[in-house]
Amino acid sequence: MSALAQSILSGEVRAASRLMRQIDDRDPAATLVLRELFAHTGKAYVIGITGSPGAGKSTLTDRLIAWYRKQGKSVGVIAVDPTSPFTGGAILGDRIRMQGHATDPGVFIRSLATRGNLGGLSRATGDCLKVMDAMGREVIIVETVGVGQDEIDIAQLAHTTCVVLVPGMGDDIQAIKAGILEIADAFVVNKADLDGSDRVVRELRAMLELRHAVKAHPPIDHDEQHRLKGAVGTRLQPQGDGEWEPPIVKTVAARDQGLAELAEAIDLHRAFLETSGQKQEREVRRAETQLVSLLRDRLLAAGLARLEREKGNLAEVAAQIAQLKLDPYALADELAGAAK
Amino acid sequence: MSALAQSILSGEVRAASRLMRQIDDRDPAATLVLRELFAHTGKAYVIGITGSPGAGKSTLTDRLIAWYRKQGKSVGVIAVDPTSPFTGGAILGDRIRMQGHATDPGVFIRSLATRGNLGGLSRATGDCLKVMDAMGREVIIVETVGVGQDEIDIAQLAHTTCVVLVPGMGDDIQAIKAGILEIADAFVVNKADLDGSDRVVRELRAMLELRHAVKAHPPIDHDEQHRLKGAVGTRLQPQGDGEWEPPIVKTVAARDQGLAELAEAIDLHRAFLETSGQKQEREVRRAETQLVSLLRDRLLAAGLARLEREKGNLAEVAAQIAQLKLDPYALADELAGAAK
Repeated sequence: MSALAQSILSGEVRAASRLMRQIDDRDPAATLVLRELFAHTGKAYVIGITGSPGAGKSTLTDRLIAWYRKQGKSVGVIAVDPTSPFTGGAILGDRIRMQGHATDPGVFIRSLATRGNLGGLSRATGDCLKVMDAMGREVIIVETVGVGQDEIDIAQLAHTTCVVLVPGMGDDIQAIKAGILEIADAFVVNKADLDGSDRVVRELRAMLELRHAVKAHPPIDHDEQHRLKGAVGTRLQPQGDGEWEPPIVKTVAARDQGLAELAEAIDLHRAFLETSGQKQEREVRRAETQLVSLLRDRLLAAGLARLEREKGNLAEVAAQIAQLKLDPYALADELAGAAK
Repeated sequence: MSALAQSILSGEVRAASRLMRQIDDRDPAATLVLRELFAHTGKAYVIGITGSPGAGKSTLTDRLIAWYRKQGKSVGVIAVDPTSPFTGGAILGDRIRMQGHATDPGVFIRSLATRGNLGGLSRATGDCLKVMDAMGREVIIVETVGVGQDEIDIAQLAHTTCVVLVPGMGDDIQAIKAGILEIADAFVVNKADLDGSDRVVRELRAMLELRHAVKAHPPIDHDEQHRLKGAVGTRLQPQGDGEWEPPIVKTVAARDQGLAELAEAIDLHRAFLETSGQKQEREVRRAETQLVSLLRDRLLAAGLARLEREKGNLAEVAAQIAQLKLDPYALADELAGAAK
């Protein structure tokens, strides 16, 4: 085993940071270490905190950290910021919000941001989760904005996903609620001291009821059926008696209110997964999400390397496509043909 | 040329719908038709409408459709919904908002949603854009929630990207602003009749000024430099004298206010791209974004097909990974090795 892997297994933060930097750099050396660590993972409990911008996720995460630290648990945090890193403002913001824990060796916070159009955010999150798991962090919190496609994947890397909403976000928020209903193990109505928090709770209840109705009587619209057929995952199956009903917890994170209730909801879900036998199902889904992200990323890297070798660099190839001199569909078929 | 491609080139909506369904289905037959159409694309002007949930993007899109129709232009709309299609609510919502145009043959609206963890939303958007372009739509509007990684890619498929903000979304919205600053060709402050719209405009101005400052004096923080180095794209370069300053337009879309100003801002940006010589640069970036999405999708499909052939189906493989019996990193390396 490499010295780096050994240091990480003994919990060294500096070693873990070094590996995470290599992960971020797409350094092939990182994979070798991740392979060494893999057998030592699977012990951490992963909590996802997701929701719209402005919902107060960072403050909530900050308070959850404090909660688990009081219980003597070591905590890892991955703050995923899907916006671009160009101005640096967002990342700095996350760090400032959580800086009360900066001197606590029991808290390890890592920010991850989008890397231009090569993507790979969910892959990087999955990798960093494995590192924090291998170094012995008992609870890992993954915080992300929950409205993008990759971000929904990221939420699915968690054992318990908490979806955070706030009052007064307008009617369009219904759309988001419809989407995130499926990934929520618990709903948090944060800033519950604001007007309209009861309305959000009522709307959530109504949507949860609607979900039951939809499951009993699936839509007959052809388009909808067509989409449902193509959708991946087991969540479309009726869950029967062993079904988990996501609790709705009101919090005012900035004033540390409702955190005990939220932690209890998370504990209950964890107990549910374990006693219902659904823990294993969840682990399979987590592994599937991680594998697909990993494959997507590695295959793209290999394909782009091959493109560069055979056709020239990406910008040159794109210029030929823009001039209609090169057909991107033929090119993609050619490169994918080799991967078959 | 196939009959389907011919029908699409002559502008038939039913033929285009059929191909788009095949695209959505990942039907390999679709690629052959897309290859036939490719040489006939490049004529449409593509406008991106992006922003947070609740910003009123669908209403704004609806009014822009009406605006371009009044000018006699044929319009295509791709409403991208990154939330899950399970409940169908969001998609239905989009359609309801735009249904005033349902009987107008000059307006062709298509909704696209996430397809589980196989992703591919930006690939599907790129493909549908080509179809609408080939069928002769003069203006194509792509509407998407602008806070995810894929959604930023989608915004980069446009010639002119309009970022929509609303007053009163709280302090955390700063984070989003920081991220979308880089992709905005125009800012829209919608619901400008609400309190705080002037504050949003002021904050945007301040951030645009900050961007100038950051460009003149890049951050020296090591982490930040490290990330910037890895980021893709030419937007990090100082743009010099030919720089476009994104205008800030106030609208109240629900009352049809400010639409003329917004349309003018879009026209100005279009003229800027053409006269500054940056149109070509933009086309290259668009082609690059589309190619990367296409490669990511095709390579993943090929890799998963190979996985299935050699190791068993995805769920079985994921189960072995969850039990730590199979190392996903070794597996990904093996599959990517073949793609090299």
